[in-house]
Amino acid sequence: MDKFQELRNKYLKSTKEKVRTTSFRGDFILQSFKSIKELENIINLLCSKLREWYACYYPELEKSARNNEEFLKKIIENPERKTSMGMEDCNKEDTSILITFAKNIKNLFEQKIELEKYLEKLLEDFCPNIRAIAGNTITCLMIEQMGSLKKLMGMPASTIQILGAEKALFRHLKGEGRSPKFGFLYGHELVKKSRDNKGKVAKLLADKISIAAKIDYFKGKFIGDKLRKEVEEKSKYC
Amino acid sequence: MDKFQELRNKYLKSTKEKVRTTSFRGDFILQSFKSIKELENIINLLCSKLREWYACYYPELEKSARNNEEFLKKIIENPERKTSMGMEDCNKEDTSILITFAKNIKNLFEQKIELEKYLEKLLEDFCPNIRAIAGNTITCLMIEQMGSLKKLMGMPASTIQILGAEKALFRHLKGEGRSPKFGFLYGHELVKKSRDNKGKVAKLLADKISIAAKIDYFKGKFIGDKLRKEVEEKSKYC
Repeated sequence: MDKFQELRNKYLKSTKEKVRTTSFRGDFILQSFKSIKELENIINLLCSKLREWYACYYPELEKSARNNEEFLKKIIENPERKTSMGMEDCNKEDTSILITFAKNIKNLFEQKIELEKYLEKLLEDFCPNIRAIAGNTITCLMIEQMGSLKKLMGMPASTIQILGAEKALFRHLKGEGRSPKFGFLYGHELVKKSRDNKGKVAKLLADKISIAAKIDYFKGKFIGDKLRKEVEEKSKYC
Repeated sequence: MDKFQELRNKYLKSTKEKVRTTSFRGDFILQSFKSIKELENIINLLCSKLREWYACYYPELEKSARNNEEFLKKIIENPERKTSMGMEDCNKEDTSILITFAKNIKNLFEQKIELEKYLEKLLEDFCPNIRAIAGNTITCLMIEQMGSLKKLMGMPASTIQILGAEKALFRHLKGEGRSPKFGFLYGHELVKKSRDNKGKVAKLLADKISIAAKIDYFKGKFIGDKLRKEVEEKSKYC
């Protein structure tokens, strides 16, 4: 039984070692991207709750700030209430609760900005080429959809072209509707620019992104600018 | 036309005045209760995101803390990584991002606790009688369901008894299933205690809550303790 235990420990150790060496800092791209999206939703949700609450106290201020960031800033400044149709019997405790609430939401805002900067650095480190062609957001969306940079690397250009349009694709495969021409790439500026041949431009982009993903994964040189220029040139004739 | 304008301003002013005087600090009960619920969801969500992320870096620590609060505390302390199967190439920037993230979630925790204290004070001020009978949570749930303390005050005991069981009630009215005997009151300790006559106890409670709501709304004396004792006495014979 001792031998069995020994063997077990040996295998456990080697598995742990493998887990350790195969995990990859580039995966943090996905983690931070997901967290940013989550934070965005959360900030909007909390702001709407705070707006509802604050409107009881000082509806005029709440109305005057459409933008959430501006709204939070105004609350934290805590201006004197002048002629307001807000509630009469608010005391200091009520306003201080509202102000700390606003401060906490502002902290989340700052957290989001910090994460965005961090994500940009990660993208620079791990997928400079894809990023140069597709831009930050589309790069992240594609990695998210595939699950990792490695999986994105393994995809052919035709798959990359319609990433994000799975619904339309499966509808098409069931015999309803046309085959989609683009998914996430619909948001790309070159595709937006093109009037009649959005599909062709998306295809050009997907070709280059597929090349770029392979270069990035195997830590090749930076040729993103060159690839991007090629797409821009060719898309003129589309 | 001047006269028309004058009249308009006059009415606007009087309406604003009315809005001002009819809004009521007790409405903050609902606002803070909703915010607490929202915060609870958000904290869980962010913690699960952080757990997923942190597990790439130091899975052993993530596993060792089941409780979210404990988990955040451990991250903030930022212990040395010993033998870990986490990712190798993490640098200081990565860990500092994780630590600020954890700190921000901790702030939300503290915000929640502060709001809970504030809510308790509001309940003491505005519905001491209902609270003494039904407890904090059920009081808030009932006010939330009805929309305000005023509306809860206007309800008969039979409605209060099945607040929170609307789905079952309408199913019953369509001819399926039995009429529900309790909604939110199912969570009340006296109802939980009773074995065979949960429905009767819920009815007794609803009777007293309906009285208490009227007393609270019209700022009557505190007789919550007395009412609660009456229910406790009677529920013994159920």
